Order: sequence, then C-alpha cells, then structure tokens
Amino acid sequence: MSIKLSSTSYGKSAVRVMKLTKHADWHEIKEVDVRTLFEGEFEEAHTIGDNTNVLPTDTQKNTVFALAKNHSLNTIEEFGIHLAKHFHDNNPQIHKVRVELSQKQWVQMLADGKPHPEAYQRGGNEKWTAVIELTADSMTVQSGISDLLILKTTNSGFSNFRRDEYTTLKDTEDRIFATSLTALWDYNSSDLDFGKTRKDIQEHLLTSFANHKSLSVQHTLYDMGTRVLNHAEQVNKIDIDMPNKHHLLVNLSPFDLANDNEIFVVTEDPYGEIKGTLERK
Amino acid sequence: MSIKLSSTSYGKSAVRVMKLTKHADWHEIKEVDVRTLFEGEFEEAHTIGDNTNVLPTDTQKNTVFALAKNHSLNTIEEFGIHLAKHFHDNNPQIHKVRVELSQKQWVQMLADGKPHPEAYQRGGNEKWTAVIELTADSMTVQSGISDLLILKTTNSGFSNFRRDEYTTLKDTEDRIFATSLTALWDYNSSDLDFGKTRKDIQEHLLTSFANHKSLSVQHTLYDMGTRVLNHAEQVNKIDIDMPNKHHLLVNLSPFDLANDNEIFVVTEDPYGEIKGTLERK
Amino acid sequence: MSIKLSSTSYGKSAVRVMKLTKHADWHEIKEVDVRTLFEGEFEEAHTIGDNTNVLPTDTQKNTVFALAKNHSLNTIEEFGIHLAKHFHDNNPQIHKVRVELSQKQWVQMLADGKPHPEAYQRGGNEKWTAVIELTADSMTVQSGISDLLILKTTNSGFSNFRRDEYTTLKDTEDRIFATSLTALWDYNSSDLDFGKTRKDIQEHLLTSFANHKSLSVQHTLYDMGTRVLNHAEQVNKIDIDMPNKHHLLVNLSPFDLANDNEIFVVTEDPYGEIKGTLERK
Amino acid sequence: MSIKLSSTSYGKSAVRVMKLTKHADWHEIKEVDVRTLFEGEFEEAHTIGDNTNVLPTDTQKNTVFALAKNHSLNTIEEFGIHLAKHFHDNNPQIHKVRVELSQKQWVQMLADGKPHPEAYQRGGNEKWTAVIELTADSMTVQSGISDLLILKTTNSGFSNFRRDEYTTLKDTEDRIFATSLTALWDYNSSDLDFGKTRKDIQEHLLTSFANHKSLSVQHTLYDMGTRVLNHAEQVNKIDIDMPNKHHLLVNLSPFDLANDNEIFVVTEDPYGEIKGTLERK
Repeated sequence: MSIKLSSTSYGKSAVRVMKLTKHADWHEIKEVDVRTLFEGEFEEAHTIGDNTNVLPTDTQKNTVFALAKNHSLNTIEEFGIHLAKHFHDNNPQIHKVRVELSQKQWVQMLADGKPHPEAYQRGGNEKWTAVIELTADSMTVQSGISDLLILKTTNSGFSNFRRDEYTTLKDTEDRIFATSLTALWDYNSSDLDFGKTRKDIQEHLLTSFANHKSLSVQHTLYDMGTRVLNHAEQVNKIDIDMPNKHHLLVNLSPFDLANDNEIFVVTEDPYGEIKGTLERK
Repeated sequence: MSIKLSSTSYGKSAVRVMKLTKHADWHEIKEVDVRTLFEGEFEEAHTIGDNTNVLPTDTQKNTVFALAKNHSLNTIEEFGIHLAKHFHDNNPQIHKVRVELSQKQWVQMLADGKPHPEAYQRGGNEKWTAVIELTADSMTVQSGISDLLILKTTNSGFSNFRRDEYTTLKDTEDRIFATSLTALWDYNSSDLDFGKTRKDIQEHLLTSFANHKSLSVQHTLYDMGTRVLNHAEQVNKIDIDMPNKHHLLVNLSPFDLANDNEIFVVTEDPYGEIKGTLERK
Repeated sequence: MSIKLSSTSYGKSAVRVMKLTKHADWHEIKEVDVRTLFEGEFEEAHTIGDNTNVLPTDTQKNTVFALAKNHSLNTIEEFGIHLAKHFHDNNPQIHKVRVELSQKQWVQMLADGKPHPEAYQRGGNEKWTAVIELTADSMTVQSGISDLLILKTTNSGFSNFRRDEYTTLKDTEDRIFATSLTALWDYNSSDLDFGKTRKDIQEHLLTSFANHKSLSVQHTLYDMGTRVLNHAEQVNKIDIDMPNKHHLLVNLSPFDLANDNEIFVVTEDPYGEIKGTLERK
Repeated sequence: MSIKLSSTSYGKSAVRVMKLTKHADWHEIKEVDVRTLFEGEFEEAHTIGDNTNVLPTDTQKNTVFALAKNHSLNTIEEFGIHLAKHFHDNNPQIHKVRVELSQKQWVQMLADGKPHPEAYQRGGNEKWTAVIELTADSMTVQSGISDLLILKTTNSGFSNFRRDEYTTLKDTEDRIFATSLTALWDYNSSDLDFGKTRKDIQEHLLTSFANHKSLSVQHTLYDMGTRVLNHAEQVNKIDIDMPNKHHLLVNLSPFDLANDNEIFVVTEDPYGEIKGTLERK
C-alpha cells in the first residue's frame, strides 16, 4: 500500500502583541493577536524528520514581535500584509503564507469627565479581524469582525415555515432577535484605506440589522450582505455567520401574569446557526 | 461519635433574565443574572430527607421571572431588595436571604449615524453587580463592578521591593499597568439613588486609576479606595481586587532592536493578585 | 450591480442529549452533543423572507430527541446516519444534510471497590466525534477524536531546523512533547462495526505516539497517520491536528540549580500548530 | 474623615509547574497549579508606596519552580507545607501564608495493550486540591477535590417540598442526579500519609453517592459528609458543594412518544446549588 501526504500546514497561534506609541500629547495602544500558518515543501519533515525547511514556530513568534517594532500597526491589514511578505520573501520553501489577525478594542478612559491621554478601558466585546493569504501568484486580503453581540427588540418575526410531525414552534410576528455577528469580506484590491473602509462596512452591517423588517435571520443576513456589496465597491464577497442567541419568552401564565414580550430568559444552548455568502455575479 | 451540620445553604444560580420595556419612542432593555441563596431551618432536609422547608430552586427561578414582570428593574439594587424581601417575608424557615445580581452592558446601536431606538450592541465587558443580604435583624446592600479591563500606559513603576535568593525581577520606573477590576462596596443606607451613586463611584475609581502616580498596584488600589470613601459618604467600606494582567516587555535585543516600552507580550498566567479592603475608622 | 447568494447553510448546534437505558442488571448512559446543518433550496428565505422551505432549527432539535427515543445510540456514527437519512428523506428541499456528533466519556464509578451498576463519573477529557454528510448521490461517514490531551516525557527532539535572523530557539534532543489531539478519518464504507473500528484506530494513534522516536511534531503526526492507514483498511484518509502544548524548561540557573529536564512551566499561549492529512494514493 | 486598611493580601496565581522524574524503568510526572497569598505588614506599601516589605509575586513564582526542583512533589499537601514554611521562615513581615494547590490527573497511556512507561494521557476532569495556611501560631492543612463530574441514574427523588404560588415543579421519585463535586476537608494533624488518606476519603465520598437512597441533594450531601467523618478519624470538618447539573426529562408527548426516564436534555443554566459543612461536635 502507498500513502501520500495530501496536505500539511503549520504555524504559531495566539501571539498576543501590544504596541505602545507615545505621541506628544497622548499614548496610543494597539492589541493584536496573530496567527501564522505555512504551506510548502514540508514533506520530508513529516516522512523522515528532516527539519531543514522548517522555520520554527518560535521564530514566527519572534518575527511578529520584531516586525511590530518598526511597523505602525496602523491597521491589522497592513501589518498582516507586511508579515506575510516577510515570511514569503525570505522562505522559498513556503508556498503559501496565511496570516490571521484579530484586534481587541480599547477606548480612552474618562477621568474627571474627559478622555485621559494615557488610560484606557476595554471597549466592546467585538474583535476586528483580518486574513492575508500570499502565494507566488496572488495575495488575498480579507477583513472582518467577530463576537459582536447585537440585538433588536422588534421588527423581527418568523412564521409560515415548513412544519412536520416534530414541529412545535409557533409562528411569531414579534420577537427579540439577538446574535453574535461574525463577518468576513474579500477585497478586490490591497491598496485601500483599510481603516476607513472597515468603518464604513461595519456601519452598513449595523444599519441594515437595526432597520430591517426581519422575516427570519436568513432574511436579515441577506439584507446586511447586499447593503455592504451595494455600498462598498472594494468588496467582492462577504461571509456572514449569525448564530441565534435565543431570548425565549418566559411562560408566566401559571402565575396569572401576561407576558407580552416583556420577560425573556437568555439561553446559550441549543442554538440556531445561520450562515450565508454573498458575492458579485 | 457525633456530627453536626455547622452550616448549610442552597439556591439558584445563573437565572438570566432580560426585561424589555417598550416606551413610546424607544425600547429599553435590562439583562440581569440573578443568584439566590438561602440559609435557615434546613437541618432535617439534610439529616432525614424531609423537604417540607425546602422551597425548590426551580421555584426561586420562577420567582425571579415573575417578580421581574411587575418591577421596573430600574437598578439591580432595587430589584435585589425586592426579591430578598419577597423570599424573606414569605418563608419564615429562611433566616438569611442572599441575592446576587449582575447586569450586562448594552448600548444603543448607531444606525445611519444616530442611536437607534430599538437596536443595541453589547457595551464593554464589565458587569455591574449588587449583593443584598436580608435577615430578621438587618439588611445590607452592596454594589460593585467586575471584569472591567483597564490599562494605563505610564505613571506606573515598581521598585525598591524586598529581594531574596529567588528574586530576578528588576526595578522599573515605567511599565504598563493593566488589571481586570473587581470592586464591591457597602452602603450605610438602603434609601439611595443607586444609579447615580454607582455612576459617581465608578468615576472616582477610574479617575484615580488614570491619574495616580503609581508606585505599585497596592499603592494605586489604596488611592482608588480612599478617593471613593472621601467622596461618597454613602459608602462604609470597599473591597478592591486587582489581578495584574501582565504586559511583559519583549526582549528584542537578539534582533538588535531597542524596546523602549514599545512592544509587549500579553500574558494570562501566571498572574499577580492584589486585594485590599478600606473602611471608615 | 448584481448579487448572488453563493452559499448558505443553517442548522442547530449544541443539542445535548443523554439517553438512559435500564438493563436488567445495570444502567447504561450515552451523552451526545448533536449539530445539524442543511444546504438546499433556501434562496427565497434569504431574498424575500419566504420561509416555506425552512424546517425550523427548533424542529431539528426536537427531532434529535424524538429519534433518540427509538434508536439504540449504540454508536454516534449509526445515530448520525439515522438522523441524516431522516432529514434527507423527508425534506426534498434539503440537498445536503450534515450531522456532527460528539460523545462525552462516562465510566462506571467504583463503590466499595467495584463498579457500580447505576453510578458514573466523567472519564477523560476527550470526545469521540463523527460527521455524516448525505446528499442524493453520496454519503460520507467520518469518525474522530478531539481534546485528547497526551504527553510523552522523552524520545522527542527538534533540531537542525531552518534558522534566520529572528531565530533564538536552540536545538534539543530531549523535550516533553504534549498535545491536544484532534483526528478525523474517512471510511470507505458505511457498513462497519463502528465501535470496534474506532477503538482499533484510537489504539494505533496512541501506540504510535507513545513509541515513536520523534524528530518533530510533524514527524510523529506522519507516523501516527501511516500506522492508521497501514492497519485500518476501512480508512481512506485521516486528518490530524496536533497543537503544541508547550512545557518549557524553566531556567533555574539564577538559583544555582541545574534543570536536566525536571522542572517545566506549562503554558497556554502562544502555541505551535501542526496539521496534516494523509490518504491512500 | 479617617480611613483604615482593614485587610489586604497579595500573591501569585496560576503558577503551573510540571515535575518530571526519570526512574529506572518509568518516567513519573506531576502537574500542579500553585497559588500563593500573603497577609502581613503591607500597610505602607498601600499608603505611601513603600515596597520594602513586598516580596514580588514574580519571586513567589520563581520560588515555586526552584523549590519543586529539590522536593519530591509526592503529594501536593507536602509540597504546599514546604512552600508555606519557606515563605514564612524567610519573611518576618508576612504574618499569614496561604498556599493553594491543584493537581491535574495524568494516567499512563496504553500502547500495544500495556501501560507505556513514558507516555501519558489526561485522566478525568477532576483536580486534587490542597490549602495550607501558616501563621506564627498555627498551621492548617486542608485537602479536597474539585470538578469531579458524577452522576447516578436512579435512587434519587425530590418530593414533598415546600410550595408557593410560583411553584410549578412536580414531585419526582426517580430522576438523574448529576453534580460537579467540590469537597474540602480539614485534617487534625499535618503528620499523615496524605496520599492514602485522600484516596480513602474520595472512595467514601463516591461510595456514599453511588449507594445512597437520595431524597434530595441535601440528603445525599449529608450522607457523604457523615460517611467521611465516620470513617476518617483524621478529618475534623468537611465542606461539600454540589451544584445540580440538571438533566431534564424531555417532553416527547407532542410526538406521541412516552419518556419513562429515557431521554434527557443536559442543561448548564440556571442551576441549583447546594452547600453544606459537617464537623465533629
């Protein structure tokens, strides 16, 4: 019998770097988690333990810190491209470099009622993400957002769905719609104002979510994606993942109390998952 | 041999309630996790399995939802007092009711550039907390905050500490100081504007953290506590817990790079812990 | 501009079912987490909110519980196939059903020194997994294992690797090798003794890990995969994912102590990741 | 106004040490997480930032690793006592040393059907714990267990409980009883065979849990505690904490299926909590 190694990759995860830049009148911080992943000529590392092509994951970690020193970290997209090019240009044995980055949110702290130039507190839960893939032939840049918990209190229903013998769910015209939004979009260029573009796209996603007359999670997901593609010409394609964070109406009738969409129990599991990808034709 | 049951308690945890109130021009949401814990005449439940004094934890859960229906949930302190009184007044076998509450942060979502009346996103990570303890003789009300991640980029050192044969740490006059703040304070009254008082105290804690010339975590913790006691006459006592979220300077010298407080690695463990309680003499 | 919905899927996650079967002389338990995911004719659910093709995720959850009632749950593979066929056969609008299952480990508790017929404790951390994909044309069955924490104290080195300006790692001939093993393998048939086959494959994976003279994680991963393919003719392909759970040698030299592979610090991040797929040629 | 610092403590948490001992014919590993916590003369560290009494938490971490080098780590109780004495004897400014330890379970891996002398896999989820407190006047040693997930399929009911207007729970004579056991007991001596004593006590806890005809969680908790106190003369007192890991009977009646304690949904929240302390009179 004969065996082939049909794919292989390796890299370093959870490299957590903070860069502090001391400007004249304020201190700027960026906190970024980096993951690097390589594909290439690593067959003999597997088959006979020949490590001569293997740039250690420890070196990958060191490289993230060292390159952060002389890079602005202005956006994670730019830093990711810089990292990907470094690894690609210096390692002919690597055919594909993937760099994943995720940025945590810090906001200036209010002290004595005004933003303090050197003190911060964690902003929302959400992370800004980017994924760079670089080969000899191409580079793709994706940006995204993850773990953004959003909720609308109305304009959300789910009815006239398919029913079978195991269906007990009732039609509803008014429910809480909550999700932990993950989105990732592909750019058709790597020469962009990544910061402004991200900001615009995030606003389109949220504005759609807030305003949409939702007939289902699927329905709103589609509206969010189309709004992005209609407004952001730099975007080719967008993946959206919207798990349903169920807020279930509590049955208060045993206590002779009405519950007209007032009291909900927040549940973690089981949960519905809805995913979709929209792209230009 | 003779055995006594020297203490016992029971209750319900992780009762996650959301209350939605539809005002004329906006929808208000409150998300609160509730924990109830009872002490009292439960010896025979343990010794002979006599459950006649045991109000089920399932009933405690139902009660939280049912009482939320007719209560504003304006503040968790008021709702906690209401719950504690309900359980205490209706259950002579319960000698002490403890209610712990924790409120998650939601902020109005921006849509088309302005706050949307019916859409929200999760605010910061922090939770607002309250603890009510009620017996026949007394009621104590505590308020607090937990999981508030804060960081200052300068005005923090640690030097001239005790050294022994296992000490390798160097003095530093300038470091990143980051912590996940937990604080809990006791009020000397239960007749307060809990919302405003909490807001003021949180501002004092953050203003002290931001402005203090810190010689150690202990030093800043003390400044934060004294600022609260000096400004908030309603507070008797405050506990502060400040685990050190270490941001360690990365050694870039092997790469011939300086690192003048620019590049840090964020670590989770091991971590230092500093706790203190301040009260009026 | 024109937009297409290039892919979409939805389903239910974290459906946690326990089945209890009371045999004459002992009670058997199975704890399985199920995830269902559908692809098919859901375009109009997205584009115009027409839900007539959408079998609710709530119904999917109900179906898992209802079908568990009359199925043995003997193996998660059999139960997964049963679920996939049910959804596929009754829903022509679904083109592809994916069912993911994960089984937690329970072992009989020792009481008075012997296994108790009705009492259990959680076994190891690891989960047994299965993935079923069913379309009109084909069914694939995969089995796997996840979260299995394994460690070897010797016969593991990493040396003669590629070096660059950011490399500080030293060659080592002897280190602790620890990983949280995830593996997933494809069967060339769905008519198997899934229980015995899984047991055999898991033994091959562990025996290889334990005995291999490891020159790198990649090297051992390959040995583990080849051993499975060489011994288990039912397997076509195997994916193995071995994140490096680093146990770093502590530098005790400041304390005039040697550390000849005796004292290690266990770290969570950053961590190396090594993945590979082996298949028959 | 006058403020006092009524209590203060500091220390290091999550110091994760693995000790590897290479015996002639097998390799032994111990994985222990250590937390140290000091109380003493630290007032001026807080009030004026005088660190001369403050042994850094970094030094505490170093000490754990350094002392592990020349200690057997035979039991966490012995290692904890050794650590506590070291800190106490060398630091007159520390009035109370608390050391908390928790040991993870590793079992020898089977390779080719027999235990491999150098390969391990994680055992169950549970951790063995110990707490040492040392002052000039006294030393207390506690041992315990945490995160031990246990379940019994029968001999558990809950009925004839107190009812009020918010009670909807029905009496049950037969249910699944599952909990994540945490127990902590005090010894009346520090001159014990800690390993054997722990093993005996754990067996008593589990044997009671398995065999008890349970009328409530409280009832079984008491039986477990009394069995320990009746059999282990070294134990003065035991705390037991048994959160209810609810396995709720699924209502299958909408599908015309009976559910005679066969199909359960496993839920995480809300959950009941039951705690008790038993001691000798």
